[in-house]
Amino acid sequence: MGNADGVLPGTEFGHRVPVPPSRPFLDTFRANLKETFFPDDPLRQFRNESGPRRVILGLKYFLPILDWAPSYSLSLFKSDLIAGATIASLAIPQGISYAKLANLPPIIGLYSSFVPPLVYAMMGSSRDLAVGTVAVASLLIGSMLADEVSPTQEPALYLHLAFTATFFAGLFQAALGLLRLGFIVDFLSHATIVGFMAGAATVVCLQQLKGMLGLEHFTTATDLVSVLKSVFTQVHQWRWESAVLGCCFLFFLLLTRFFSKRRPRFFWVSAAAPLTSVILGTLLVFLTHAENHGVQVIGYLKKGLNPPSATSLIFTAPYLTVALKTGVVTGIVALAEGIAVGRSFAMFKNYHIDGNKEMIAFGTMNIVGSLTSCYLTTGPFSRSAVNYNAGCKTAMSNVVMAAAVMITLLFLTPLFHYTPLVVLSAIIMAAMLGLVDYEAAIHLWHVDKVDFCVCLAAFLGVVFGSVEIGLVIAVSISILRVLLFVSRPRTTVLGKVPNSSAYRRVDQYPVAQTVPGVLILRIDAPIYFTNASYLRERISRWIEEENDSSKGETSLQYLILDMGAVGSIDTSGISMLDEVKKIIDRRSIKLVLANPGSEVMKKMNSSKILEAIGHEWVFLTVADAVAACNFMLHTCKPGATANDNGACEAVV
Amino acid sequence: MGNADGVLPGTEFGHRVPVPPSRPFLDTFRANLKETFFPDDPLRQFRNESGPRRVILGLKYFLPILDWAPSYSLSLFKSDLIAGATIASLAIPQGISYAKLANLPPIIGLYSSFVPPLVYAMMGSSRDLAVGTVAVASLLIGSMLADEVSPTQEPALYLHLAFTATFFAGLFQAALGLLRLGFIVDFLSHATIVGFMAGAATVVCLQQLKGMLGLEHFTTATDLVSVLKSVFTQVHQWRWESAVLGCCFLFFLLLTRFFSKRRPRFFWVSAAAPLTSVILGTLLVFLTHAENHGVQVIGYLKKGLNPPSATSLIFTAPYLTVALKTGVVTGIVALAEGIAVGRSFAMFKNYHIDGNKEMIAFGTMNIVGSLTSCYLTTGPFSRSAVNYNAGCKTAMSNVVMAAAVMITLLFLTPLFHYTPLVVLSAIIMAAMLGLVDYEAAIHLWHVDKVDFCVCLAAFLGVVFGSVEIGLVIAVSISILRVLLFVSRPRTTVLGKVPNSSAYRRVDQYPVAQTVPGVLILRIDAPIYFTNASYLRERISRWIEEENDSSKGETSLQYLILDMGAVGSIDTSGISMLDEVKKIIDRRSIKLVLANPGSEVMKKMNSSKILEAIGHEWVFLTVADAVAACNFMLHTCKPGATANDNGACEAVV
Repeated sequence: MGNADGVLPGTEFGHRVPVPPSRPFLDTFRANLKETFFPDDPLRQFRNESGPRRVILGLKYFLPILDWAPSYSLSLFKSDLIAGATIASLAIPQGISYAKLANLPPIIGLYSSFVPPLVYAMMGSSRDLAVGTVAVASLLIGSMLADEVSPTQEPALYLHLAFTATFFAGLFQAALGLLRLGFIVDFLSHATIVGFMAGAATVVCLQQLKGMLGLEHFTTATDLVSVLKSVFTQVHQWRWESAVLGCCFLFFLLLTRFFSKRRPRFFWVSAAAPLTSVILGTLLVFLTHAENHGVQVIGYLKKGLNPPSATSLIFTAPYLTVALKTGVVTGIVALAEGIAVGRSFAMFKNYHIDGNKEMIAFGTMNIVGSLTSCYLTTGPFSRSAVNYNAGCKTAMSNVVMAAAVMITLLFLTPLFHYTPLVVLSAIIMAAMLGLVDYEAAIHLWHVDKVDFCVCLAAFLGVVFGSVEIGLVIAVSISILRVLLFVSRPRTTVLGKVPNSSAYRRVDQYPVAQTVPGVLILRIDAPIYFTNASYLRERISRWIEEENDSSKGETSLQYLILDMGAVGSIDTSGISMLDEVKKIIDRRSIKLVLANPGSEVMKKMNSSKILEAIGHEWVFLTVADAVAACNFMLHTCKPGATANDNGACEAVV
Repeated sequence: MGNADGVLPGTEFGHRVPVPPSRPFLDTFRANLKETFFPDDPLRQFRNESGPRRVILGLKYFLPILDWAPSYSLSLFKSDLIAGATIASLAIPQGISYAKLANLPPIIGLYSSFVPPLVYAMMGSSRDLAVGTVAVASLLIGSMLADEVSPTQEPALYLHLAFTATFFAGLFQAALGLLRLGFIVDFLSHATIVGFMAGAATVVCLQQLKGMLGLEHFTTATDLVSVLKSVFTQVHQWRWESAVLGCCFLFFLLLTRFFSKRRPRFFWVSAAAPLTSVILGTLLVFLTHAENHGVQVIGYLKKGLNPPSATSLIFTAPYLTVALKTGVVTGIVALAEGIAVGRSFAMFKNYHIDGNKEMIAFGTMNIVGSLTSCYLTTGPFSRSAVNYNAGCKTAMSNVVMAAAVMITLLFLTPLFHYTPLVVLSAIIMAAMLGLVDYEAAIHLWHVDKVDFCVCLAAFLGVVFGSVEIGLVIAVSISILRVLLFVSRPRTTVLGKVPNSSAYRRVDQYPVAQTVPGVLILRIDAPIYFTNASYLRERISRWIEEENDSSKGETSLQYLILDMGAVGSIDTSGISMLDEVKKIIDRRSIKLVLANPGSEVMKKMNSSKILEAIGHEWVFLTVADAVAACNFMLHTCKPGATANDNGACEAVV
C-alpha cells in the first residue's frame, strides 16, 4: 500500500504508514557517517566558493585569529590589557604552586604560562578562555608518574617523563579533534565532573598539609587514609611557624574571595589577592629570615625564557607506556575542563564554540608546550572566570598575560627566592575550596538520584581510592545507566484522553480511558538485542494481566503497539516482533502497529514480517488503529478477525 | 496548572501536561528495582497463599519435576522412551568426540552424559532440551586451559583444572540466576551468536584435520593460520588410510543428514547415523586390525560409573585464576546456547521458559557434574533438535538417555576399544558443518548492515584470532552500536499530515506540510549526558538552516520540541534544555514543548526549568501546541510573545 512518492492512502480507518523508498546502502551509510562525525557540517561554508577563497576560509578555520585580528581596535586592546594584567597576577603564583603539585620545579609552571597562551591566542575559538595549568591535571600527572619514577631521586628523568606525557596528551587531544571524536568528552557527564572535581579538590587540600605543616617526608599516595596517617604519624615534625603563616594567608584569601563574591564590582580584589599574598609572604620571610626557622622557601629560580625540550622526550621502553597512559588520561581530563569552561562562557556572550576545533587548538598548544619545557595546560575555570570578569574582549588577553610572564621570567625570577612554600599551599587550598560545588550536588539529588550516585561515586572513588579509580567508577556507572535504560525500556498501557484524539499513558494521565477488547502498549525505547527478550516477556505479561483483569468483559482481541518512540530496531528486535506475533496469534489476538518510524518500516519490510502482520494493519496514529479495531470488533464475529487479515473489511 | 488527580485543564489551546504527583523516593526506587530484576514478577503466584502451600509452590519453583511427575502417564513415557533412546545413540559418540576436543579422556565425555541429564530432569523447565556437552564450549575449555597446562605432559593436573573450571562455570551460572542477572545473556545478540558459531565450527573442523590425517603432533593454537601451517608442514606425516576412512564416514553422515532434511519423517536416519558409523568403524578396525596401519583408536576405556571428583578441585594459585576465567567465559557461552535452544523449542510448543530458573538449573547441573567427574554441559542444539523430532514429551527423555549411558558405562565400554578416532573426527565435522548458518548471515545483510558487521567481526575474530577474541570484538561492537545510538539521536522536522491531526516526520512523509514561523522538532531518544551537547548543537543548527531557508517568509518565532520519544532525561539533559532556551531566547524565539513523559515533567519541574519555559507552554499534543502558536502569531505583534509567556493570551 505504501508507495515511493509517499502519498498516504486514506481509508475509512484513517491513514496507513507507507514503506519508505529503499535508498542505496552507500547513501544511507554516508548519511549516518556524516551525522555521527560531522553533525556541525563544518564544510558548509566552503560550498560554492572559489579556490583561493577556500584556502583563506580553511586557514581561518584553523587560525581564528585571522578572523578577528584585522578588525582589532585600540579600544578592544584596552580592555584586553586590563584583563591580561589581572590574569597574569593570578597566573604567576598559581603556575608555581601547581607545578609543585605535579612534583615539578616551580619554574616549569612559569614556562607553562608563557608559550601555550600564545599558541591558543592564534588557534583558539574562545574569547574568554585564559590558558594555564590546572590543579587536577597537575595532581594526576604527579600521582601517575610518581608511581613509576621518584621525583626526588631521579628529578631529571621525572621531568622528561612529564614533558613526554604532555606531548602524548597534546597528540591525543589533537587526534580526537581531527578524527571528529569530540563526543568522547561527552562521556564525562556533568555529574561525574562535579563529583570528580570535589574529590580532587579534597585530595589536593590534603596534599597541602605537607607545605602547611612544613613536613619534610610525605606519602606519594593521594588517598585520604594514607595522607592522614602520614600527617599524624609525624606530629612531632609539625612546624608551628609555617602553620600559623599558612593559616593567616588562607584566611586572607578566603576573605577577599568572600568580599568579591558579595560585591562583583571588586572582583579584582580576589584576583589580585594571590599575587599580594606572595609579595607579602616574600617580604615577611626576607625581613625576618624565617627560612632559617622552619619556613621552606622556593629558593633559586633560573632566569631566562623556556629552554627547548624536544630532545628530552622519552620514546623508549619501559617509560613509554606510563607516559602514554598518563598523557591520555590527563589529556582527556584537561580537555573536558577546558571545553566545558569555553562552552559556558561562550553561552554567556552568545557565540559559538566548535568542540573539535578547540580540541585541535588544545592539542597543538600542548604539543608545542612539550617541546618548550611546558607541562600540560588547558583553560582553568578560576582563571577564565577572572578573565571574563576583568572584561576581556578577545584571546589577546592571553597574549598580554604571556608578555607579563615573559618579563617575569627575564628579570623578576630572583624576587621569588624568598617566597615561602606555605603561601603557595594557601593559594592552592583557597582555589580548591572554590571547586567543591556542594550546591550542584544537592541539585543533582533533587533532580536525578542516579546522577547523584554517579557524582558521589566519583567523589568517594577519588578521595578513598585514587583520581583514576574515581574517574573509571563514575564513567562506568554512567555508561551502565545508559545500557540499563536500553535493556529495560518502559512499556506502558495507553488510554484515550477525554475530548482529544490523543492516546496517552494511563499511569501519567489517570483520566485516560482504555478501550475494551483492545490493549494499547507503548514501547519507550529502540528495540535492540539488549532488550528484545525482555520486551517479549513483558508484553506477554501485559497480555496475561489484561486477561486476568478483564474477567467477564469483552475478552482481549487486539494488541496495538505504539511504535512512535521506537527510534531504531535491529534484527533481534525484528525477530522479537515475529515471536510476539506468534505468541498472540495462538491466543487469537491480532497484532496492530501504530506510527512506526521509517527505519522500522524499512526493516520490517525487508524482513518480510510486514507481510505477516499485514500492511493494512500498520496505522499512522493510535486513534486510526483503534477505530479500525472497533469497527472489526462490532462487525466481525470474535476470533474471525485474528486469522484473516481484515477479511471483513472486504466483506463490508 | 498540573494537579495531583491528573484532571487535564482544557483551554482553547487544547490540553496541557500535568506535573505528576511526586512519589516518595523509596517507592520509585523499589519500582525500578523490581522492573529491572523481577520483570517476570516470579512471586505473583505466592500472593494470597497459605504458609504450607507456599512451601510447596517454592519447591515446585525450583524443582519443576514436582509439577509434571504426578500427572506423568504411560503414554507419555512411551514417547519419552523412544526419544531418549534416539538421543542416547547420538550422545555416546558425541560425548567421546567432544571430550577429545577439550583434550580430555574420552570416558569423561560419557560420564558427562550420565549425571547432568538426571539433575536437569529434576530442575529444568524445558521439555525438549537434551543435556550434553557441546563442541564450542569444549573447544573453549581445550584452548583456554591448554595455554596454561599441557594436556599431554600433565594430564592429571589438566583434568582437575577442567573439573574446577566446570565448577566455577556452574557457580557463575547459578549465581546469575539467583541474582536475577539473566539479562546479561542478552548481550550476546543473535548476530553475535551466528557469527561466533560459524567461526567456532570452522575452527573445530580445522582441528579435526589432526584426526583425519592421523597426525601425531599438532598445534594447540586454534586460529586458521597456525593450524594450516602445522598441517602443511608435515605433509609427509599424513596417513592415507585414516584420511580415506574419515572421508567415507563424513560422506555417509552428510548423506544421511541430507536425506533426513528432505524427508522429515526419517529424522531417525540422521539421528542413528553417528552410532552406526561408530559401530561400522569399530568392526572394520577390529576385523582388519587397521590400528596397526596408522589408524588411531580410542583404546582402553575404564568400566564403571562416574568416580567422585570433589577432592580433585583446585582452589590454589597459580591455577585458580585460569580455572576461574575459563569457567566464567565457557559458562556464559554455554548458558547462551542452552537458553536460546530452550526458548526456541518452548516457542514451537507454546509454553513458557523462565530464563533465571533455567540458569539455576544449568548451574546446579554443572556444579554436581564437576563433583562427579563431568565437564561443562548444556543444551546442545543438535541433540535437542533430535529429541524434539523424536517426539519427546517431558524431561524424562533425559533420564532415559542417562540410563542408556549408564548401561554403556557398566557393560559396553570395552566395545569402544577399537573405535577409530577418525570416525569421531568425521562425526564432529558433520555436526559442525550444520552450525554454519550462512542463510542467517545473508538475512542479516539484507535487514541490518550493522548486525551483519557484528556477525562478520565475530566470525573473523574467532577464525583468525581466538574464540575469546571473537567474542570480545563482537560484544563490544554491539555495545558500541547501542552507545552510538544514544549519543547520536535522530532529530527530525515534523509537518502536518493532510486531513489528519497528526504531525509526522517530513523525511518519512513527503506530503506532510511544515507550519510557517514554527519549527517542530522531534527528538528520537532519551536525553542523556552522552547526547546532551550534540542535541544542543544540532538544534541550533536546525534553527539556522530554517532561518536560511525561510528567506522573505515569516521569520521563525516558535520552536516546538516533540518530547514524545524522550523516554528519560538526566541532569545534563535538563541543563541542555535550559541552554537551548537561553540560545533561542536571544533570537526572540519561544520554546514550546509537546507531550513530555511523566519522568521528564517531574524532573523539569523539580529543576525549575518548567517555570522558565512556562507550564502553559507544555502541550499534550503537537497539534495543540501549533494551534496555540498560530493564535499568538496572528494576534500578537511578532517578538512580543517571546519574552512574556502568553501575555497576549490574558489580553484576549
